Amino acid sequence: MIKEQKNKNNVKIALIQSAVSEDIKKNLEITLQKIKQAAKNGAQIVCLQELFRTIYIGESENKDYFKFAEADNGETVAAMQKLAKENKIVIITPFFEVAAGKNKNTNEKEYFNTAVVVDADGTIAGKYRKMHIPNDPGFWERYYFKNGNLGFHAIQTKYAKIGVLICWDQWFPEAARIMTLSGAEILFYPTAIGWYKEKESAVYEEYKNGWLIMQRSHAIANSVYVASVNRVGKEFADKSIDKVTFWGNSFVCGAFGQFISHASENEEIIYADCNLSENKDVRDSWGFFGGRRTDAYKGLLKKGIKDSKK
Amino acid sequence: MIKEQKNKNNVKIALIQSAVSEDIKKNLEITLQKIKQAAKNGAQIVCLQELFRTIYIGESENKDYFKFAEADNGETVAAMQKLAKENKIVIITPFFEVAAGKNKNTNEKEYFNTAVVVDADGTIAGKYRKMHIPNDPGFWERYYFKNGNLGFHAIQTKYAKIGVLICWDQWFPEAARIMTLSGAEILFYPTAIGWYKEKESAVYEEYKNGWLIMQRSHAIANSVYVASVNRVGKEFADKSIDKVTFWGNSFVCGAFGQFISHASENEEIIYADCNLSENKDVRDSWGFFGGRRTDAYKGLLKKGIKDSKK
Repeated sequence: MIKEQKNKNNVKIALIQSAVSEDIKKNLEITLQKIKQAAKNGAQIVCLQELFRTIYIGESENKDYFKFAEADNGETVAAMQKLAKENKIVIITPFFEVAAGKNKNTNEKEYFNTAVVVDADGTIAGKYRKMHIPNDPGFWERYYFKNGNLGFHAIQTKYAKIGVLICWDQWFPEAARIMTLSGAEILFYPTAIGWYKEKESAVYEEYKNGWLIMQRSHAIANSVYVASVNRVGKEFADKSIDKVTFWGNSFVCGAFGQFISHASENEEIIYADCNLSENKDVRDSWGFFGGRRTDAYKGLLKKGIKDSKK
Repeated sequence: MIKEQKNKNNVKIALIQSAVSEDIKKNLEITLQKIKQAAKNGAQIVCLQELFRTIYIGESENKDYFKFAEADNGETVAAMQKLAKENKIVIITPFFEVAAGKNKNTNEKEYFNTAVVVDADGTIAGKYRKMHIPNDPGFWERYYFKNGNLGFHAIQTKYAKIGVLICWDQWFPEAARIMTLSGAEILFYPTAIGWYKEKESAVYEEYKNGWLIMQRSHAIANSVYVASVNRVGKEFADKSIDKVTFWGNSFVCGAFGQFISHASENEEIIYADCNLSENKDVRDSWGFFGGRRTDAYKGLLKKGIKDSKK
């Protein structure tokens, strides 16, 4: 007898919010244990935080950190494939990707901020390379990563068609919209975001709230679930100038932007039961997609405004 | 001696949140009084709620309501021009517009849900016709209004370059983005939104919160101020089936989505001091505009998903 009748439109997801040490072997081991725990608790799709295996390297520009880069069939992805198959779960696996450059005659490599979606049978369902790359104090990602070159495309898994976007993508309504238009039913955002808390605590709250509001708005505008996974803890605590506290607050929200699960600033695994057919009802009731004025949206393809990122 | 040193980047705005009766003459008189009060209190830009002169006609499909339509040089706009000039204020004036149809040989008319921006010298600074027209129970606007045909374009006024969008436009990130790209420093949303409160109060809260989150997200994504003006009160209280309560909650928020002013569900005039140069600082610090991947946004021009609005 089964404990719970599973509707094919229901999917249970888990987000693993962790602190990370400088020991990449230990980070992997701990994460594998937590995924097993999530699977035991019924999770069907597990999402890890951005660059879960290492400290957040964007904190500084450090040549040495390129050693963390792996191929998309490297140790990290292989470990997840094994675990996914054993537990019949989907695992969204973010990692620092190194790939061969376009010119096959040179040894040139390309580096991306990537997430591979491992399907419940251990095969690779798809891959996303972070499209919007930040370059702010403490988030110097352009030093490491090229702009993603695979576009925004939903990935079909055993349990749901999902859209994976990564961290800074959160601030761009365009990314969430195109991902939904390509069929995503849940948007996942592996993330690493925090603040120099000690310096300006009022600003800290404004940034954190803005971060929550922005992502909840994607759920509303697109009638989808949004699941965001952030890390916690203080990294580089011994280098006083760039002491960053990652604010956790991983969450899952529904199509009205309402929180279904919302983590603290400590290590946590959070869960949410998502009813995908409910989303379709909300979407049909609002009619936002049919109501879109695509005839008047050409302006979206223009850069238009110059700022610090050019 | 002047009471307050005015920086040219500072602008004080006022939003007039009112209940509306079936007496359109009285509605105009009361509104003119409130605008004078706002001007006396230092407001430089005053925004009125959607279709401020009449009950919210979208509540039902009623041929009789076409009598409320006016030309863009009709009584309502003329009254605002006079008041704007006398008080040196900008007045955002939403009204039910009737215009000559395209075919000049016929007597055919076209109807729009419009806002005229009256500049501080009484001249017309620009006009916006609501682009996204809803058609939901209690919001049957497609019976009355054609899709707006003037696009999304910011309007230069004496005190700021502003973007006017109307009600259902709120749910579309595309509208806020293009309006900002065209130069808007403050986005104004004249609005009429409410709920059948008695029926499902939990849903009421979810809708209201979703409405707030969605608009605050436009401020964050675009590093602009957002000012939304909604009506209050119960309309059609004697026709039990469609008793709608407009939820007020007019607000102004800054570029982190933080509330600067936030009204109750009662009649109110709310004010906010907007520092436009602060917005530019936030924008440059985030770099969202420079970071946009316009090379990968073509998907935004596709309808993609079918729903109740086709």
